[in-house]
Amino acid sequence: MISKVRLEAFSDGVIAIAITLLVLNIDVPPHAGGQLAHRLGEQWPSYAAYAVSFITIGIIWINHHGMVSRLAAVDHSILMLNLLLLLSIGLLPWTTALIAEYLREGSGQHLAAAIYAGSFLTMASAFYAMQRHILQNRRHLLTEAFDEERLRAIDRRNRFGLIPYAVAAALAPLSAYVTLAICAVIAAFYALPPRPQQDPAGHAAP
Amino acid sequence: MISKVRLEAFSDGVIAIAITLLVLNIDVPPHAGGQLAHRLGEQWPSYAAYAVSFITIGIIWINHHGMVSRLAAVDHSILMLNLLLLLSIGLLPWTTALIAEYLREGSGQHLAAAIYAGSFLTMASAFYAMQRHILQNRRHLLTEAFDEERLRAIDRRNRFGLIPYAVAAALAPLSAYVTLAICAVIAAFYALPPRPQQDPAGHAAP
Amino acid sequence: MISKVRLEAFSDGVIAIAITLLVLNIDVPPHAGGQLAHRLGEQWPSYAAYAVSFITIGIIWINHHGMVSRLAAVDHSILMLNLLLLLSIGLLPWTTALIAEYLREGSGQHLAAAIYAGSFLTMASAFYAMQRHILQNRRHLLTEAFDEERLRAIDRRNRFGLIPYAVAAALAPLSAYVTLAICAVIAAFYALPPRPQQDPAGHAAP
Amino acid sequence: MISKVRLEAFSDGVIAIAITLLVLNIDVPPHAGGQLAHRLGEQWPSYAAYAVSFITIGIIWINHHGMVSRLAAVDHSILMLNLLLLLSIGLLPWTTALIAEYLREGSGQHLAAAIYAGSFLTMASAFYAMQRHILQNRRHLLTEAFDEERLRAIDRRNRFGLIPYAVAAALAPLSAYVTLAICAVIAAFYALPPRPQQDPAGHAAP
Repeated sequence: MISKVRLEAFSDGVIAIAITLLVLNIDVPPHAGGQLAHRLGEQWPSYAAYAVSFITIGIIWINHHGMVSRLAAVDHSILMLNLLLLLSIGLLPWTTALIAEYLREGSGQHLAAAIYAGSFLTMASAFYAMQRHILQNRRHLLTEAFDEERLRAIDRRNRFGLIPYAVAAALAPLSAYVTLAICAVIAAFYALPPRPQQDPAGHAAP
Repeated sequence: MISKVRLEAFSDGVIAIAITLLVLNIDVPPHAGGQLAHRLGEQWPSYAAYAVSFITIGIIWINHHGMVSRLAAVDHSILMLNLLLLLSIGLLPWTTALIAEYLREGSGQHLAAAIYAGSFLTMASAFYAMQRHILQNRRHLLTEAFDEERLRAIDRRNRFGLIPYAVAAALAPLSAYVTLAICAVIAAFYALPPRPQQDPAGHAAP
Repeated sequence: MISKVRLEAFSDGVIAIAITLLVLNIDVPPHAGGQLAHRLGEQWPSYAAYAVSFITIGIIWINHHGMVSRLAAVDHSILMLNLLLLLSIGLLPWTTALIAEYLREGSGQHLAAAIYAGSFLTMASAFYAMQRHILQNRRHLLTEAFDEERLRAIDRRNRFGLIPYAVAAALAPLSAYVTLAICAVIAAFYALPPRPQQDPAGHAAP
Repeated sequence: MISKVRLEAFSDGVIAIAITLLVLNIDVPPHAGGQLAHRLGEQWPSYAAYAVSFITIGIIWINHHGMVSRLAAVDHSILMLNLLLLLSIGLLPWTTALIAEYLREGSGQHLAAAIYAGSFLTMASAFYAMQRHILQNRRHLLTEAFDEERLRAIDRRNRFGLIPYAVAAALAPLSAYVTLAICAVIAAFYALPPRPQQDPAGHAAP
């Protein structure tokens, strides 16, 4: 079976590439068509989407490491759930490009925003499914024992972590800007220092 | 000579990049030309091809690790067969983009599908050639002894693993959709949990 | 928490990808439109920007390693400051493409150059913030003790390292060529062998 | 200073990305414009250039590992020579796209071929410069002692390794096809199993 080390290395690779491909969604404006300053300014959704996606993927990387570092073994289900998680992360450069392109368009902006928040929700759900599988098979899969109380707390926190993205996606028909803002707030929330009492093992999925 | 560790690291890198470049085959529709929802829907071959190729490359990565982890040494032939395998994996973003672009075209769809399944067949053949070389030189190259019975079983299973892709390619002149569906079924088959009696060392090439 | 090893591996990945994506800013001229030699010659800003950015990112990679290798522990702030540093490095393929595209344009060249030097200044500032945090929390974070004298010297040198990029950005309204030339000189300065008395721990940020 | 391990990891990353980006030079033909089979056939220079560049970069990766694995220490010059080597490897996706695009054009094909072979010559020269520096400072830099005879043999072989690329570039004004063919033959030569008497430490630069 795949060793934990190589699972980490491959996942690190995919996540590092997805995060770096984000820059390809920022265009260099063609020469014709007016002042460069004006046209770079018009591209602000690209910069905002780049920053939000970059921080979000960075945080999922941190959480992914936390989850994998506690593993004592790797089974077939972990490999496949991890592959699904990477598949959802691999889509983010596209959904980021989509919202950057359509945020300021009258038509299409709502759908693009829903897909953007939806792609984060998918990623967080895949993360949740993987963590749930690990916790349910903790006797074979985890290096340390967790008491029931703590397990329930971790599970609860991860489930709650899905809600903000669901809200962001649900509000997309109302305003694409609100959706992007919520995703930005979620990223900022996880980027801020954890409160002292927080259990590092229970880092919720972004 | 190259150590096993660095062979794995380099292969992981190439496979991780190829799998992540797949997303570049999914377009952001240009603004002009109708409803975004409609045009995203028309792109469904891109999503399907992304998913099938992503899972397939993920599985070849798992199998590649299984093969390399049993190596006791790395010789020149392994380096070159591995390079050929990586060359065939590196082509997949292109063949994936090709089938995504042509699946719904009257003309060209059959050829694009044949090339798509053919690129998987090439990859599986390169994998088979590498594994065959290892098994034939097992005294120098493998860490553990395999009895003849088990070796024949591994070899047979890997040879059988080529057949579905050959069938998928052969059916392309009939229907490009059938070809893509077969590739999807193969990916799903390998993604499902292995039957208990399966020998992990004999993971067939996808 | 994230181990130092995995922080390095992920950072190495992002930096290696950003440095390699730089090549995408060099165009293959389309067939129509005159002599290939002439048109490749016209692209010289692309080659110059490629070389300057490649060397600069290579040097920040060297300095990043120096900084991380002295860490005894990784805290949440380091993770986030490192993510900001990677975010700024991830933008460089875009700012490099921007100056390459606009350097020879009458309009836009000054802004493009200011953004180019500004992106290096941002990167160096993120590096400085990360190093400052480490030095300020040196009791928990560093493997070895530094005497006050040496710490002040490192801090001073890093702060001075920001000045050349600020100057390069400030001179952009005057001449985009001067800005690019200053960035090239900075890269060459760091690429030259260090003077013997230089403290390797105090490698200034480029 | 940078450890050997991290120098390898970063170099592996850049080389793995450059080799995988090669696929982006193979186009998916647009729908309009005739039979897909015909137009894919017309793209044969892309496939040939992909294969030649992929094998060549793969071999330089093998040789790079051989060179670095014998290092006992890493100095500033090695870091910078390695960065120049990576810079030259990073350019190969562009020179590969250039020859693929221009090989069949009456005008431009000679220049494109000269640049293609020239980029391999540059890479091999950077490799040679790095190996020369290591051999000249072998007392500090190498793990094992080499007798004078063997050192001269390695140096000679590496210098001779430059000649075929120089010939390939020099023949470009005559025929771009001959240039590409020579590069293919060089790649095949290094890909073939080494003769038994060959010294693995003296693997010549491709």
